[in-house]
Amino acid sequence: MEQITLQVKGMTCGHCEKAVKSALLEVEGVKEVAVDLPSGSVAVEFDHEKATVTQMKAAVEDQGYDVE
Amino acid sequence: MEQITLQVKGMTCGHCEKAVKSALLEVEGVKEVAVDLPSGSVAVEFDHEKATVTQMKAAVEDQGYDVE
Repeated sequence: MEQITLQVKGMTCGHCEKAVKSALLEVEGVKEVAVDLPSGSVAVEFDHEKATVTQMKAAVEDQGYDVE
Repeated sequence: MEQITLQVKGMTCGHCEKAVKSALLEVEGVKEVAVDLPSGSVAVEFDHEKATVTQMKAAVEDQGYDVE
């Protein structure tokens, strides 16, 4: 299991937080997601044999947010 | 049919807009809802024999937003 912190831009409220969290949890291999709304930091715990950072970024971007 | 414009505080994004719109459309007698996100103005067309302003305000407040 590995951990990465994505920097997500554009989350403004609890709905945004949920949208990003749900999208990441739908990526196969993602186990846990913790969002810090004020800073935009999204900590993701994942199995690197299943999930890639590219997939995770795409999942967040599909919801309309930018990943730095 | 009557029209009222509610001033809603706290909507920050498209998710908020949808939450407020859906909540208002669930009030019996509400026919149309138009949200202007930047200003917080929410125009509601409704049948005053069925829906009351009190019900509409409560529906919005239940979603976590303030109505002025």
